[in-house]
Amino acid sequence: MKESVKNTLDKYVEFIEKALKKYSLKSRLGLQSTVADAMDYSIEAGGKRIRPVLLMAFCQLFGGDINNAAAPAAAIEMIHTFSLIHDDLPCMDNDDFRRGKPSCHKQFGEACAVLAGDALAIRPFQIIANDEHLDNEKKVKLISELAFSSGAEGMIGGQIIDMENEKREKIDEANLSQMYSLKTGMLIKTSCVMGCISAGASEEQIKAAEEYASSLGLAFQIIDDILDVTADEKVLGKPVGSDAAENKTTFVTLFGIKEAKVEAKRLTEKALKILDEFDNNEFLKGLTEYLLVRDY
Amino acid sequence: MKESVKNTLDKYVEFIEKALKKYSLKSRLGLQSTVADAMDYSIEAGGKRIRPVLLMAFCQLFGGDINNAAAPAAAIEMIHTFSLIHDDLPCMDNDDFRRGKPSCHKQFGEACAVLAGDALAIRPFQIIANDEHLDNEKKVKLISELAFSSGAEGMIGGQIIDMENEKREKIDEANLSQMYSLKTGMLIKTSCVMGCISAGASEEQIKAAEEYASSLGLAFQIIDDILDVTADEKVLGKPVGSDAAENKTTFVTLFGIKEAKVEAKRLTEKALKILDEFDNNEFLKGLTEYLLVRDY
Repeated sequence: MKESVKNTLDKYVEFIEKALKKYSLKSRLGLQSTVADAMDYSIEAGGKRIRPVLLMAFCQLFGGDINNAAAPAAAIEMIHTFSLIHDDLPCMDNDDFRRGKPSCHKQFGEACAVLAGDALAIRPFQIIANDEHLDNEKKVKLISELAFSSGAEGMIGGQIIDMENEKREKIDEANLSQMYSLKTGMLIKTSCVMGCISAGASEEQIKAAEEYASSLGLAFQIIDDILDVTADEKVLGKPVGSDAAENKTTFVTLFGIKEAKVEAKRLTEKALKILDEFDNNEFLKGLTEYLLVRDY
Repeated sequence: MKESVKNTLDKYVEFIEKALKKYSLKSRLGLQSTVADAMDYSIEAGGKRIRPVLLMAFCQLFGGDINNAAAPAAAIEMIHTFSLIHDDLPCMDNDDFRRGKPSCHKQFGEACAVLAGDALAIRPFQIIANDEHLDNEKKVKLISELAFSSGAEGMIGGQIIDMENEKREKIDEANLSQMYSLKTGMLIKTSCVMGCISAGASEEQIKAAEEYASSLGLAFQIIDDILDVTADEKVLGKPVGSDAAENKTTFVTLFGIKEAKVEAKRLTEKALKILDEFDNNEFLKGLTEYLLVRDY
């Protein structure tokens, strides 16, 4: 990663960490502070903060004030964290660990994890509504976009398709594409769109951001599927071949590894080309290459 | 209940049922329609729709257009339903039945119930943001109010206190009051306040609605505690003495039945007196009497 890209990324990550700390409820709750502890625990377990970074980058790409992006960026990370907490529950994926730490329900108990997830699903709308930088029109657009993409028509819908696919014998391309585009693609797209809304971008700019995000999200997923077969366990961070071991349908099982690589390359180039249309695209191009040009 | 009060109540209930049907996602989802089925199932299991009725009544008390109340009323009922679905989960209260029907997780499985609850926690913000009747200022106020009262600072906070009280040896009045006021009182208060906001009511009117709602909510809870000891099982709809059997701290165990009755009467009179300050209060007075003047 280029030095200038890395510097901007660090700046964005620092900004979002500060925003997330600001929105912690820890000091504001009395008797019910356990739920705030569980919320903070999962937020702080952190990841690469890709979604808020994309949001901030699109806000600035289209000339927006970074302060307009603080509440929306924290909101999208909270929604992402809520989905991870509930996905890890015993009745869902039953994962005891998340990023090397005990998952929320292992640390705080199942009831508290359900409630912490619930609270992280609701708080995003409160912090956008109460933000001091955004005007009402932007707030309403942001809330509409976020609720649509994280609800039953979006991310939650993708999760239910994924759960039901476990019971299905055969999963075709249409199903797999829809599941991925809802479960993971939707929130990536919404991150970019919310960045645009924060900046007051034009309809045309929003459309370009959506197209970029669709290519990015799908390419990222295909590359993940490829790496599951080809990568070193150390690089991947989970056992190689775990999809195949679970008999999971992936882009690789559907199309073969050669075709999957061609498609990932095509989508990566498409995403980069969309960014070429805009000035000040250096950071986003660098980030895209960092996310997509992996060793597969 | 007076004929005119009953007629208005019927009209409101019809209005909210229609709104809830309109907001069903059933016809809008493809592969992920199971989650919409589960959402509709729990919404249709219905109750008395007290929260949306209060919302509509306060909207009209302060001269608002009933159409302004449709989205907020459906929103508050969705939040209430989401809380019931998650409260019934095995890791929470573990209830197999809700209003005589299998609870959501018994009917659709636990994973689907978690997701249906999640979706019903998020959709309220979408339908308010997308409403065609409300202006942006009202939408933002409504969303801020609803998110605050249903999140960790409100209803979810009350639920965590309730769960943790099961492990506590002694629960004092401050704890019990806070638990009730967050877990059930908050959403009742917010229903009244959202009705005011929909109508564009003044700060003073909102303050009166809040005071009314606090008295109503607390009186209702105290009367419930009294009825648990004194009522016929048929009237109560659950076994008499179930609180005592579970060794639960209630207003009756804390203050005795006589003192509890005095307090319930005082709060009921206070609620009715607040309504006296306003014209066109006939329906709300009738509803308050219906809810609070029970045989205890």
